[in-house]
Amino acid sequence: MFNCYPSININITAVRDNYLAIKDYVSNNTVVSAVVKANAYGLNAKIISDSLYDAGCRDFWVAYLKEAIDIRTVLPNDANIYVLQGFDKDDIDLLKQYRLTQVINSIEEFNIAKGNGLDLVLFFDTGLSRLGIRPDDVDLLLPDLKDEKISYAMSHLACAEDIYSPYNLKQKQVFEEILSKIMDIKKVKASLSASGGTFLGPEYQYDMVRIGAFLYGIQPSPSVLQAKNVVSVKTQVLQRYSIQPGDGVGYGFTFKANRNTKVAIVSIGYSDGIHRKLSNIGKVLFYSNTGECYKSQILGNISMDLLACDVTTIPDECTCVGHEAVLLDDNYTINDMAAELGTVTCEVLTSLNYNSMRVHITYNT
Amino acid sequence: MFNCYPSININITAVRDNYLAIKDYVSNNTVVSAVVKANAYGLNAKIISDSLYDAGCRDFWVAYLKEAIDIRTVLPNDANIYVLQGFDKDDIDLLKQYRLTQVINSIEEFNIAKGNGLDLVLFFDTGLSRLGIRPDDVDLLLPDLKDEKISYAMSHLACAEDIYSPYNLKQKQVFEEILSKIMDIKKVKASLSASGGTFLGPEYQYDMVRIGAFLYGIQPSPSVLQAKNVVSVKTQVLQRYSIQPGDGVGYGFTFKANRNTKVAIVSIGYSDGIHRKLSNIGKVLFYSNTGECYKSQILGNISMDLLACDVTTIPDECTCVGHEAVLLDDNYTINDMAAELGTVTCEVLTSLNYNSMRVHITYNT
Repeated sequence: MFNCYPSININITAVRDNYLAIKDYVSNNTVVSAVVKANAYGLNAKIISDSLYDAGCRDFWVAYLKEAIDIRTVLPNDANIYVLQGFDKDDIDLLKQYRLTQVINSIEEFNIAKGNGLDLVLFFDTGLSRLGIRPDDVDLLLPDLKDEKISYAMSHLACAEDIYSPYNLKQKQVFEEILSKIMDIKKVKASLSASGGTFLGPEYQYDMVRIGAFLYGIQPSPSVLQAKNVVSVKTQVLQRYSIQPGDGVGYGFTFKANRNTKVAIVSIGYSDGIHRKLSNIGKVLFYSNTGECYKSQILGNISMDLLACDVTTIPDECTCVGHEAVLLDDNYTINDMAAELGTVTCEVLTSLNYNSMRVHITYNT
Repeated sequence: MFNCYPSININITAVRDNYLAIKDYVSNNTVVSAVVKANAYGLNAKIISDSLYDAGCRDFWVAYLKEAIDIRTVLPNDANIYVLQGFDKDDIDLLKQYRLTQVINSIEEFNIAKGNGLDLVLFFDTGLSRLGIRPDDVDLLLPDLKDEKISYAMSHLACAEDIYSPYNLKQKQVFEEILSKIMDIKKVKASLSASGGTFLGPEYQYDMVRIGAFLYGIQPSPSVLQAKNVVSVKTQVLQRYSIQPGDGVGYGFTFKANRNTKVAIVSIGYSDGIHRKLSNIGKVLFYSNTGECYKSQILGNISMDLLACDVTTIPDECTCVGHEAVLLDDNYTINDMAAELGTVTCEVLTSLNYNSMRVHITYNT
């Protein structure tokens, strides 16, 4: 069968290396936990959880109870799995059965959870205005706190990617105030930061950092630590030809040639997760046998299954029919694509169509 | 288990109704075929092909050979399945084994295919500058055409969504010239139009139209025919509270309240396929028990698993914790969301994360 299918390679070794790099980076007493929600940002939560457990990780975060039960199949009971969102009394039995820790996001959820012997994390909203116990509600918790098993009090920063944002310190101060009220009643560990916050320095790391983005190759800015690239996306050239000045390319002719232009038609499109917004913006890489890398410009609107790119100045032997065309790799990473798209790198990751039967997934270990 | 998972409902009856509406609309002698590539734009190619076969459809288009083999499992041999892209000599046996028709996109592919007794479609590029036999290459085909089984000569319009575009007629003229050369040698049927071209009128419909977009609820403009909505996306409210003037919402605080604002936190995010670009733009719908519909504005940046919306002016009983929050339905369709995103409606469809274990998929038949 003509091997013209897109393929995604996920470098599990790089995920482990990124985990170990963070462990080296943070304070000695800070636990490095792994955020594997949304199927590990698309990359396969089971495979990644399994590999990180081997590397020493014992704490894993998911969004939903369903996701927690799924990764428990590969994680022994000495691994802690935290469920970030959604809780009702019907969940109590499953939480116990799979030895899961429930994150409590409101006083109402706390009142349902208390007295059931559950492992709990208390999540406080210190300014992000997303899920979390409101600062005004903290006093309502205190009377019932003593008898509960609270592994962590946690919060989450809104502007951690911007090291100069005054909100980082402001949220930290609100968090400290809440912590001190809690600590008056019982000693709990604290966690404030995900990848971004971790790089704000040791005073933001507390007892645990929750690392997702960096594990999967998302580069913090400024780059105090270099994330290894995890994801590559490749496909093939289906056709190549020259167009004349005035010829349009793709739906609506959003590109028109102003010179003789050699076009390669490449077997991937927006249904595979290459955002259509990369039309006339994104890049496709071609390599020579000796490893030289050539960057080609995407021409015209990206289609559902295909895109066109300008290979005029690239040696013919690198762009012939059947030759590999690279959408993402170490030389044009998810970070580069996100910058061109004007979105967060996490969205580039979660948008890739990992579960389509026509995209071939491979894992490097 | 707290039922806080996003769910996608796919209305198969609406797909069938859209198919039957197109059959009514087109000329009597025009075959209506179904485009089910990219897993029927995400909606499940097998289920949709099966249902359309029952409704009388006998012609189905996919992008890849793999997709063709997949839908052959539900389509009897009297259904024609056309493979749009990628062809090599290694494919010949599989094409015969599964009784598939190969679309030929270049003179090189034709030279590999000829003499093997394959069912072929010849795809000509009449100006889109995507895949297809180049007009200059048509003469090279002619000597070998006589003995080949060519079911259709086809092309594809670049600007069919714009009924005023002069390129529609221009491409049609190029197509006619190619057809007349072919017809001098052998009689073949012709197909030029997908959904958009079909609505340009009978002279664009030829022997077959290839309908994808309209089947799945994508509304042509101008609306000569009303597409029934196919896709609904729903989830639930996880938390609700009020914020004060000056409070920010979500990462980077791209929304700041200028008055007391009631916020609902809803259990869906960009990893579920709700584009992050809908931040501060998109809508969430809430319904009262009596069916009144309230539109709420998304506030701040959409997160991976969550989003916030403004429910200040919506009756409390419609937005309480556990209440249904609607991202897409008949009152806010994929077409509406695409307009707000500034992309094609097809991308809204293919972006939804149908295969995530945390999204529950249901089918209405």
